[in-house]
Amino acid sequence: MARKDLLDIASLSRVEIDHLLHQAVPFKELFTRSVKKVPALKGKSVLTLFYEPSTRTHSSFEVAAKRLSADVTHFDVGQSSITKGESVRETVETLEAMRTDFIIVRHSKSGLPAMIASLTKASVINAGDGAHAHPTQALLDAFTIMEKFPEPAGKRVLIIGDILHSRVARSTSLILKKLGIEVAYLAPGSLLPKLGAEGIHRFTDYAKAMAWLPDIVYLLRVQMERQDAQFFPSLREYHRLYGITDERLQEISKRGLYLMHPGPVNRGVELCDAVMEYERSLINDQVENGIAVRMAVLYWLKPEANHGV
Amino acid sequence: MARKDLLDIASLSRVEIDHLLHQAVPFKELFTRSVKKVPALKGKSVLTLFYEPSTRTHSSFEVAAKRLSADVTHFDVGQSSITKGESVRETVETLEAMRTDFIIVRHSKSGLPAMIASLTKASVINAGDGAHAHPTQALLDAFTIMEKFPEPAGKRVLIIGDILHSRVARSTSLILKKLGIEVAYLAPGSLLPKLGAEGIHRFTDYAKAMAWLPDIVYLLRVQMERQDAQFFPSLREYHRLYGITDERLQEISKRGLYLMHPGPVNRGVELCDAVMEYERSLINDQVENGIAVRMAVLYWLKPEANHGV
Amino acid sequence: MARKDLLDIASLSRVEIDHLLHQAVPFKELFTRSVKKVPALKGKSVLTLFYEPSTRTHSSFEVAAKRLSADVTHFDVGQSSITKGESVRETVETLEAMRTDFIIVRHSKSGLPAMIASLTKASVINAGDGAHAHPTQALLDAFTIMEKFPEPAGKRVLIIGDILHSRVARSTSLILKKLGIEVAYLAPGSLLPKLGAEGIHRFTDYAKAMAWLPDIVYLLRVQMERQDAQFFPSLREYHRLYGITDERLQEISKRGLYLMHPGPVNRGVELCDAVMEYERSLINDQVENGIAVRMAVLYWLKPEANHGV
Repeated sequence: MARKDLLDIASLSRVEIDHLLHQAVPFKELFTRSVKKVPALKGKSVLTLFYEPSTRTHSSFEVAAKRLSADVTHFDVGQSSITKGESVRETVETLEAMRTDFIIVRHSKSGLPAMIASLTKASVINAGDGAHAHPTQALLDAFTIMEKFPEPAGKRVLIIGDILHSRVARSTSLILKKLGIEVAYLAPGSLLPKLGAEGIHRFTDYAKAMAWLPDIVYLLRVQMERQDAQFFPSLREYHRLYGITDERLQEISKRGLYLMHPGPVNRGVELCDAVMEYERSLINDQVENGIAVRMAVLYWLKPEANHGV
Repeated sequence: MARKDLLDIASLSRVEIDHLLHQAVPFKELFTRSVKKVPALKGKSVLTLFYEPSTRTHSSFEVAAKRLSADVTHFDVGQSSITKGESVRETVETLEAMRTDFIIVRHSKSGLPAMIASLTKASVINAGDGAHAHPTQALLDAFTIMEKFPEPAGKRVLIIGDILHSRVARSTSLILKKLGIEVAYLAPGSLLPKLGAEGIHRFTDYAKAMAWLPDIVYLLRVQMERQDAQFFPSLREYHRLYGITDERLQEISKRGLYLMHPGPVNRGVELCDAVMEYERSLINDQVENGIAVRMAVLYWLKPEANHGV
Repeated sequence: MARKDLLDIASLSRVEIDHLLHQAVPFKELFTRSVKKVPALKGKSVLTLFYEPSTRTHSSFEVAAKRLSADVTHFDVGQSSITKGESVRETVETLEAMRTDFIIVRHSKSGLPAMIASLTKASVINAGDGAHAHPTQALLDAFTIMEKFPEPAGKRVLIIGDILHSRVARSTSLILKKLGIEVAYLAPGSLLPKLGAEGIHRFTDYAKAMAWLPDIVYLLRVQMERQDAQFFPSLREYHRLYGITDERLQEISKRGLYLMHPGPVNRGVELCDAVMEYERSLINDQVENGIAVRMAVLYWLKPEANHGV
C-alpha cells in the first residue's frame, strides 16, 4: 500500500493518513530514550533540495532522516543555480543518477515537486511548493490535534490569516476535513479564497468567528518576505484586527481553547508575547511532532524497485 | 602500491588506472542494493575544502565518502577566508592538526592541491585546480567509456569546446591516451592549446572532425562564469559552429555514436534539448560512475602512517 | 558531579577542570588509531548555532561530536534570522522541541549562552560570547600547557594583545590562575582592562614584560573585523611594538620559551612568518587538543533527565 511520493494531502486516503499518524507514535516515543535513533534507513541517501530557504523545515527533515540512520546531503541549489544556471530538470537527473533514495524539495512554484517526482525513481517529499501544498505540515498539525482530541470528528478549528496565499492553510484544512474536523477561516476579505473552500465557514470579523465556538485557534504566519503587508494597512492594524492580543488571549484561556501556529512566529503581529507562556499553546508540540511525522513519512514511502531491494 | 595523494592523471601508471577502474565496479554494484554502504572508512575524517563552488562535484565526493561510512565535514573556506584572511597554508596546518585523513580540494589556482599535499600527512584528492587537472573526472570518464568499450584501444573520442582552459580536457585526454584511445580536439583556433597536445588531432571545423570518424563525442562545458564568451561571437554562434544541434544529433544517432559531457550542461549552447532524450547519451552514467570512482579513489589512497593503523 | 552546561571557566571548580583535562587524554590517543571514533554519544543530537561565523571552532566541535558518534546538525541562523526575523528565544524553544541534546552556541552578545541555557533542557556549550568567555578555548590552552608542564603551578604565561576585548584572554587567564599558573598581560594601555585582573601583572612595554621571565608567550589574535585597528596606529606599528618579530623570535628561541596563539594567525602582525617553523610553537597542538577537549566536554555534560535515559 506504500506510495512512491508525498506531494499533497488531496491524494491521500483516510486509511493512509491514519496509517501515517499511527506510525509517528512510536517514533515520537523514541525521543524520550537515550538513543533517539533506529537503523530503519541505514544506507539510504536523502538529498535536500531547498530552492526557498527554510532553516526550521530543513532541520526538521534532516534530524528526522538522521534518526532513521539515513545519510543526508544538502544539495546547495542556491549556489549552484545562481552560478551555473542549471535547470531543475537537469538537477533531478543528476540526483537520480547519484542513486538518491529520497529527494526533499521546497520551491516557490506550485507543482514543481510533482514534476520532479515524474522524473525520478527516488521518493519525492514536497516540503512546500508555492501556495499549493505542505503535506508534512498538515500531517504534523493533524497529529498534534489528535494528541488532544483522539476522536477529532466534529471538533472545530478556526484558521486565521492570509488563507489565500497559504499552502499551510490549504493542506491543513484538507487533512482536517478528511478527519471529520470542522474548519473555518478568518481573514480580511482580500485574503479569503474565492474557490476551493467548500464546506468551510468564512469570517472577516474576529468576534463573529469566535461565536462559531472553535476548539482550536490556528494562526498563520504573516509572510513579511512575500509582502502580505500590502493586503492590510499595517502590522499594528493586523494585530488589532486578527492577532491574538492580550485581551483575546484572556478570553481564549477562559474558554480553554488550544492555540497553534506553524512557526516561526512574528511576535506582536499574529500573537502577543504572553502566548509564549500560554499553557494550551501547542506550538512547541507542533515542532516536536514534525520530526516524528517526517520520520513516519520517510519510513512509509518506497522508492522504485531498481533503487535497491 | 597505494599512494598518498591523487593530484593528476599524468603521474598514474597504467596499472594503477586499471586497478582503480576495476575497484569501482563492486562499488557501483552496491548502488543497486538496499543498503548502499560499506564500513570501509568508518572512523575516518574527510574534509572538503572547496575554494571554487561546485555543488555537483562536492555532493559526489560527499556521497562517495558517506557510502564508505567516513565522516565528512565541509570546511567553509569561503566564509573563513573572506572574513579572516587566513592563508591556505595555515588552513592546511589546521586540518593536519585535526588529524584529518582525507582532504578534498578544489581551487582556481593550478598546483595548489600539490602544494597542500606536501604540507600534510592526510591524503589529498585534487577535485579540480585551475586549468591543470581534474583526475577523478578523467577516471569517471574512462570508466564510463569502458562500460561501453571493454577493449577501448583504438577507439576514437572527439572532445569539443574550450580545450585551452579546460582541466577536464587535459586530464581526460591523458587518461584516454594511456588506455590506447585516440583523441581529437575540435575548437575555435583561439581555444586550441599550442603545446602539450602530442599525438592529438586538432580540428577547427565540425564536418572535418566528424570525418575523422569518432566513436564518442565529448562536449566540454562553456564556462559562462569564466567568460569563455569573449573567445567567440555569441552563444548562439557557438551552438551553430560547435554545438550538437538537432541536425547534428540526427547524424550522430544514425552513426550510433555516444555523447558525453561533464555537466552541468548549458542547453542550447553545447547541446540541443533533444540530447536529453538521446539513448546513447552517457551524461547520467558519468554522474553515477563519478560516485563509484571516487569511492575507489578514497578506498585506494593511504594517508601517512601516523594517522592511524 | 556532571553539569548540564559549560558557560564559562569562572564557575568550574579545580576538581572539575582536572576531571575534564584527564578525560581528554584518552580521546586524544584515539586520534592515532585507525578508527578515530567511539560510540559514546550514538543517537544524541548536537545542534550548532553560530550567530558569528567561525570555520575553525565550528569544525572543531563538529569533528569532536562526530568522533563521539553523535548526529550533528547546523542550524543556519544567519539565513533564518535575516529572512524571517526570528528571536533567539524562539529558536531555542524550537531546538528544545526537537529534543536536541546539545546546543553549541556562539554569539557576539555576552551572556547569551547563559540565557539560552536557562530556556532549555539541552546541554549548552558556550563557543564564545562577546568579550565574556570562551571556555573550551581555555580548556584546550590549559591542556596544551600541561602536556609540556605536567606540574604547572608557578609557571609563567605572558598574554600579548587586545586583552580588553578578548574572551580568550579572559577565559584562559582564569583557568591558568586556577591551575596556579602566573599570568601577565602586555598591551597598549588602551587595550588593558581596568578591572577584573586581580593578581595579574600588567605591562605596556615588550622588554619589561620579557624581563618578568615568562615560560610561555601567548599571542592574541588582532581582530581586524572588530576594528581593533582603531586602538593602534597601524598593523606594522603593532607588529613592531607587540608582535613576535624575527629578532624577538631569536631571543625566545634562545630562552627556550613556548609560543601559543588561538588562531587563525595574522602573519606579519602578531607573528613573523618564521614562527610557523619554530619548534616550540604549540599552535598546532592547540588545534588538535581542541578536538580532544571538546570531546571531553560533550562526554561530561549531562542534558536534563527527560531528554532520555
